[in-house]
Amino acid sequence: MKWDEISQQQCPIARSSAVLGDRWSLLILSDLFLGVRRFDDFHQRLGLSRTTLTNRLKLLADHEVVQRYEYQQQPTRHEYRLTPKGLDLFPVISMLANWGNKYYFNDSKPPILRRHIPCGHDIEPVLSCPECHEEVDAQSIRARKRPDSAKLPPVERGPVTYASK
Amino acid sequence: MKWDEISQQQCPIARSSAVLGDRWSLLILSDLFLGVRRFDDFHQRLGLSRTTLTNRLKLLADHEVVQRYEYQQQPTRHEYRLTPKGLDLFPVISMLANWGNKYYFNDSKPPILRRHIPCGHDIEPVLSCPECHEEVDAQSIRARKRPDSAKLPPVERGPVTYASK
Repeated sequence: MKWDEISQQQCPIARSSAVLGDRWSLLILSDLFLGVRRFDDFHQRLGLSRTTLTNRLKLLADHEVVQRYEYQQQPTRHEYRLTPKGLDLFPVISMLANWGNKYYFNDSKPPILRRHIPCGHDIEPVLSCPECHEEVDAQSIRARKRPDSAKLPPVERGPVTYASK
Repeated sequence: MKWDEISQQQCPIARSSAVLGDRWSLLILSDLFLGVRRFDDFHQRLGLSRTTLTNRLKLLADHEVVQRYEYQQQPTRHEYRLTPKGLDLFPVISMLANWGNKYYFNDSKPPILRRHIPCGHDIEPVLSCPECHEEVDAQSIRARKRPDSAKLPPVERGPVTYASK
């Protein structure tokens, strides 16, 4: 299957990763959530080429994750703002940051602190169940295909087993 | 900055995206959480080349996200299982699935259903605050650099502004 076909697949991860499955897109998004808006700021902070940055911002704009605004004329300058669809990626970036903090900053000194404004604590957000409000992890969720969904190749599977610690 | 240097950066997203910033890695991970374990199953379901699949599984193993087990000799066959570090990526994949469901399956018929075993409901997990237990979103979090963290290029920023709906 070609990559172009993947984004058409009946799988939410496939659809999402057509937008986000790229290291630079993830880093640009992370910077957007930190308030970075201007081309030159992304360029300076991330150090990628101007061509790659242009392409990635265009991809994010094409997928309506960011919207481009002109903030200056002569010469024309644009800034990029998260759309509501882009803002909804906050949980993805948050959980990625948690994981990075846990495994690559295990001195428990994450470089970015996140304050929950309503309660005033510095936190690492957690995943929880909207019904019973308990925390959710891989072992407490069982995934199954919706009965009437499009067919994916079947997988022979027993109970999910994981590597021992 | 070269990509190789990025993964050394003092940023949890940069470190994480060195492992996950790739469309195929995200799809392989998603399949791992659905219980897929064998090379031929990944190959059949995702339709990527055997070489690319081999490389991505090796990357995930090098980063200790999966561990390889021999399940057959003559010929030798391996399966791949999530390690504890890999299992900790469940929130990232879950939130990516939520986003894909919301924006690409807006008929409210996501192709994969997720049952929360303890309470028995089919759910979409939410992000919440471990201190006050309220739901968390982009607007309710304020990020700031840890005072003693390594320096990143400064960004001129006012209040975070977003695109209007």
